[in-house]
Amino acid sequence: MLDTKSSYAIEQQLHFLREIDQLKSVIRKSPLIDQSRRENSAEHSWHLAMYAFILKDRSDKEINIDRVIKMLLIHDIVEIDAGDHPIHETTDNSAQEEAEQQAAERIFGLLPTSQGEELKALWYEFEAAESNDAVFAKSLDRLQPLIHNVATEGGTWVEGKVTHEQVEQRYGSVISGGLRRFGRW
Amino acid sequence: MLDTKSSYAIEQQLHFLREIDQLKSVIRKSPLIDQSRRENSAEHSWHLAMYAFILKDRSDKEINIDRVIKMLLIHDIVEIDAGDHPIHETTDNSAQEEAEQQAAERIFGLLPTSQGEELKALWYEFEAAESNDAVFAKSLDRLQPLIHNVATEGGTWVEGKVTHEQVEQRYGSVISGGLRRFGRW
Repeated sequence: MLDTKSSYAIEQQLHFLREIDQLKSVIRKSPLIDQSRRENSAEHSWHLAMYAFILKDRSDKEINIDRVIKMLLIHDIVEIDAGDHPIHETTDNSAQEEAEQQAAERIFGLLPTSQGEELKALWYEFEAAESNDAVFAKSLDRLQPLIHNVATEGGTWVEGKVTHEQVEQRYGSVISGGLRRFGRW
Repeated sequence: MLDTKSSYAIEQQLHFLREIDQLKSVIRKSPLIDQSRRENSAEHSWHLAMYAFILKDRSDKEINIDRVIKMLLIHDIVEIDAGDHPIHETTDNSAQEEAEQQAAERIFGLLPTSQGEELKALWYEFEAAESNDAVFAKSLDRLQPLIHNVATEGGTWVEGKVTHEQVEQRYGSVISGGLRRFGRW
């Protein structure tokens, strides 16, 4: 990755780092646990990286925890252009995918080429949800809002009239795909 | 780390993960770049982890980037109990250190023992600012607010009547301790 060491590269890297500050203004459906406000996608990404760090021994399959953490740090950056789309809302999935891919091109494209490609590949891997690392990362991305909703007595589920069956269907298989069954979960 | 696999351990881990949600409500001095509000310590931690990921080739010394990222993810968690103390404010440093150490004991102490000890050791290493990983992490912790203040035409420096010399003194040596000189910096 020689192109990350040039003096032009630092301008590109700092541009990218300033640009992603906007992820702090993308507001999600899920509230903070104290319900004082809704969570933004930057602090959500931090929390998920911490979920990965803490629950790393709970993956069903062999994972590289350092890759999982990086994947989770960048997984929502495309929302700066494409917005957040909660799983309980009906949206045009192919238009959404298209918007996210364009966002990935633009935002990761701010970086020096080799680094931009590295991040894009990691993001596509997360989206594809096929590799062990991506399956584990995706399961945490479902687990965290579930924990928040349980801690806030239903939270966005009550608000959005989401049924028990819908919760099972939309969270269950993704979570159990990446995490060993534990305790009462 | 066998004790992280028990069924009681998962309760401890989820307790910790719920507890650290409060870092999203610790408000720092630095504004977002768009100046819409001040930054909180959770999203700041995400941003710093991204700084490390992107600028990893810019350390003066050999570093383990995965340890640096983990260090930055946890570096502010003690603020949940001890609050944020900007470098330009005069505070009783020994009382502050004491409060942070107590916070580390309490919060990391929520985890299964071996994991709590691992995180505490990583946090103490960051605080000591002696290892290559900690020196690099600390330099990023100074660089990010500096970039914000430059991007917002002085930001909290103007507000707090901080002089050019104070900026040099409080940021300069820490940043140049961990990062190779680049471009106009």
